[in-house]
Amino acid sequence: MSLAAKVMAGDRLALARLLTQIENEELVGLDCLSDLYPHTGRAHLVGVTGAPGTGKSTLVNRLVLHMRSVADGKEAEPATVAVVAVDPSSPFSGGAILGDRIRMRDLAGDPGVFIRSMASRGALGGLARATAGMVQALDAVGFDIILIETVGAGQAEVDIARTAHTTVVVSAPSMGDEIQAIKAGILEIADILVVNKADIPGADNTLRFLRATLQMARPMRYGRGDHIRDQMEADGVMWEPSVLATVATQGDGIESLSQEIARHRAHLRASGEWAVREGERIRSEMELLLREHLTAQFMTRQPDGRFEEALERVIARKLSPRQAIASLLEGEG
Amino acid sequence: MSLAAKVMAGDRLALARLLTQIENEELVGLDCLSDLYPHTGRAHLVGVTGAPGTGKSTLVNRLVLHMRSVADGKEAEPATVAVVAVDPSSPFSGGAILGDRIRMRDLAGDPGVFIRSMASRGALGGLARATAGMVQALDAVGFDIILIETVGAGQAEVDIARTAHTTVVVSAPSMGDEIQAIKAGILEIADILVVNKADIPGADNTLRFLRATLQMARPMRYGRGDHIRDQMEADGVMWEPSVLATVATQGDGIESLSQEIARHRAHLRASGEWAVREGERIRSEMELLLREHLTAQFMTRQPDGRFEEALERVIARKLSPRQAIASLLEGEG
Repeated sequence: MSLAAKVMAGDRLALARLLTQIENEELVGLDCLSDLYPHTGRAHLVGVTGAPGTGKSTLVNRLVLHMRSVADGKEAEPATVAVVAVDPSSPFSGGAILGDRIRMRDLAGDPGVFIRSMASRGALGGLARATAGMVQALDAVGFDIILIETVGAGQAEVDIARTAHTTVVVSAPSMGDEIQAIKAGILEIADILVVNKADIPGADNTLRFLRATLQMARPMRYGRGDHIRDQMEADGVMWEPSVLATVATQGDGIESLSQEIARHRAHLRASGEWAVREGERIRSEMELLLREHLTAQFMTRQPDGRFEEALERVIARKLSPRQAIASLLEGEG
Repeated sequence: MSLAAKVMAGDRLALARLLTQIENEELVGLDCLSDLYPHTGRAHLVGVTGAPGTGKSTLVNRLVLHMRSVADGKEAEPATVAVVAVDPSSPFSGGAILGDRIRMRDLAGDPGVFIRSMASRGALGGLARATAGMVQALDAVGFDIILIETVGAGQAEVDIARTAHTTVVVSAPSMGDEIQAIKAGILEIADILVVNKADIPGADNTLRFLRATLQMARPMRYGRGDHIRDQMEADGVMWEPSVLATVATQGDGIESLSQEIARHRAHLRASGEWAVREGERIRSEMELLLREHLTAQFMTRQPDGRFEEALERVIARKLSPRQAIASLLEGEG
């Protein structure tokens, strides 16, 4: 039985092995992923991002428990849920694995849940690519919802969150977090905003601040025609990000969050934006792959150190950048 | 006499023509730029960015007037100054040209000043590339200081500002601007922060807010070792961004700003960071050029619509992204 067949038959050990191969960019895993690709495109991909210390992991855990306890839409069964937790800032994969163990305790024995962590890797581009590959594999084997949890609020985390259909940005009451969230332009990509730890003092301020900021950002997001926007909203074409309060440790607000995520999926489907986001995501993945392949092919053809040598000559003003690139490309012919 | 020779001899009409050719990416201009490249690397490149309505243009005008009125360091002569004003949001180049005329009135007849505006172009990548080319030309002909003024605070403006040695971020008293500035991650790239219109109510709040934000951002910028940071600061290795108040319409604070810009240049030179920033800038310019060339070459070799066709097959899940790229690359061989 091939690895792909085992994985598709529901063999969890085979799935874990495949994810490791994808993470390490082993050819056998990437080939297997290509075999699985026709089965992708069904899962609802939900990015959950925000600064460290916002209680994001607890929130995700509670969300998974909740999603597993309620019927998914009109179907009798709850949705199956996979979690990919990405922590580019952690230099230790050991920590991530330990975290998994603790998480798994709550969810142990439930075959409808799968949790996988990834810690730091050399290149952040590699991390985003590995995450995309893992999500494709989990999508192919049939998980209904895939939560992609990223720690931090830098450009890399934003890029990873962007590969999702629905992006949840988690904040907590304190000036610092708000600025963190805004700084990375993260409000622009948020479909749902969550203020976790909403029971500690200052939470009202944070909620008010985020709602005011969203209000101000409205014209930037959608242009200035209020009547057009109102009409689009009424038609269900436009999504207005909501701001929800949660206390993940108590389970408060988790049900509302779960419902809001489902409501956003319904909006994407009804408005046709699901297909638009899919198309954009696949196009940029292909463009990235193509550029990487072409550049890697080129660098392989070049003798060692030839690019660095050209760079040095440009820094020394002996060649212009255009002349240097032309000479590198000519040396090929 | 070649265009390059005329430009180097100080012919302003020839320079203006060259800049237009660079803006339009005409081959003759790009070749001329390559000829001029050995003369670059001397100018101090200063990016000035911030949201619309902060009075940035007035500030830049005042700054130029001031720089032209004082001796540059120990030399008797004032520095020569060029301004490249980039407005990606403006769809009309006519507006930019009119703006130039008004600006030029203040500075008319001074051969030590050159001002050039660029309005919107189709691709923002093209705008950044055109700006870099213009700056190289102005550097080659010997301007001591080149001010690169960008309107807005999006990623494109940040990228353009980043090509400078020194980045000045201009804000004005009002909640909106602060958020604008922070949103784009612009505080992270600011070497000098200016609160212009400092005479209107609320300016103190803005100054306090920005100073507090910078204070909070310190550990993020430099890691958490306070004693190491203090030592580095004492050694002049580290630059702590300053927050200055100005009233450009009155000329208030302009001298301090000019001095702060000169102090930052001295810091870059003394700490060795000047060479580091130069090296990084040139490397990323070359990598970008290489990727663009390779991708353009590839697309030219491909029959029309072949990439789009492959994309459609991936969206339909008939091929995986890796398989699609492999088939495009194979089709070549």
